[in-house]
Amino acid sequence: MKKFEETTIKSEQIFTGKVIQLHVDQVRLPNGETSTREIIKHPGAVAVIPITKDNKIVFVEQYRKPLEKSLVEIPAGKLEDGENPETAAIRELEEETGYTTNELSFVTSFYTSPGFADELITIYITDTIEKLTEHVAGDDDEFVEIIELTLDEAKQYVEDGRIQDAKTNYAILYLHALERR
Amino acid sequence: MKKFEETTIKSEQIFTGKVIQLHVDQVRLPNGETSTREIIKHPGAVAVIPITKDNKIVFVEQYRKPLEKSLVEIPAGKLEDGENPETAAIRELEEETGYTTNELSFVTSFYTSPGFADELITIYITDTIEKLTEHVAGDDDEFVEIIELTLDEAKQYVEDGRIQDAKTNYAILYLHALERR
Repeated sequence: MKKFEETTIKSEQIFTGKVIQLHVDQVRLPNGETSTREIIKHPGAVAVIPITKDNKIVFVEQYRKPLEKSLVEIPAGKLEDGENPETAAIRELEEETGYTTNELSFVTSFYTSPGFADELITIYITDTIEKLTEHVAGDDDEFVEIIELTLDEAKQYVEDGRIQDAKTNYAILYLHALERR
Repeated sequence: MKKFEETTIKSEQIFTGKVIQLHVDQVRLPNGETSTREIIKHPGAVAVIPITKDNKIVFVEQYRKPLEKSLVEIPAGKLEDGENPETAAIRELEEETGYTTNELSFVTSFYTSPGFADELITIYITDTIEKLTEHVAGDDDEFVEIIELTLDEAKQYVEDGRIQDAKTNYAILYLHALERR
């Protein structure tokens, strides 16, 4: 038995979508009582911090329907079925920015919202990126615009709320900490 | 019209739970085509980085049903109806750790998973915490254990995967960057 484990009494599948699944579990708590847990299943995600030769960070701006506004974020996307995270990270980099790389370094991985979702995101960094000569088609319902910023400009975007997302705020703080070594 | 705005053609409410709501929107894309968006509505969250007088960070370990394992996290929780974020942060600190404070400093706020959820988390820090003399009852289905760690110990927990959560990884990187000023 794991610490504070909540054993499943019953699990009800409520919804299966393109991206997420929702189920509601009835659980037995450590004190013997019961409760329910609302759980989102997600395939997992990857993100890349791409640094250009002139030391700019490549971001993408896209509309985020849950927020009804656009955000500026590092390139990222969902894992496809059985896809290796590094492969997925390079694929998303190519589709969203038109850059590619063959060198990624692991930065960190974290659950984005462990209270209700199992989404795990893995973040990589690369400072060896090259522009692709041909456009790589991504999802046909994704519209993104590339924005290249210095670290100071990116910090200003955080101040202004144009950058306000877990992976991207983490990435900027990571670069800030690197600069201070 | 906002940049790349996706206008709602139809919104279907699929599920309303204790914590989250799910709806599926049919949207008009910028190119005139249609697509669907799966959207989780969440009340928003707060978290606190509590620092003790002897410079330890106060964490809580709790079982996360979506992951079927426990994680070590900074104290955090959902906003209650109409609740001010600072009030919520102090309430969660009291309920989860038995410490209180009357001084919080804003660290950052970010959307945890803007692709499918509107959850915004605001993170505060405080180094003026006091043990409460009386226990404050929290949610009766929450079981947590307090763990106080130095920053170096916390970094080791990240290495070991016992800390692996957006707000907590951010908090540790934030303290790491502060140390290097």
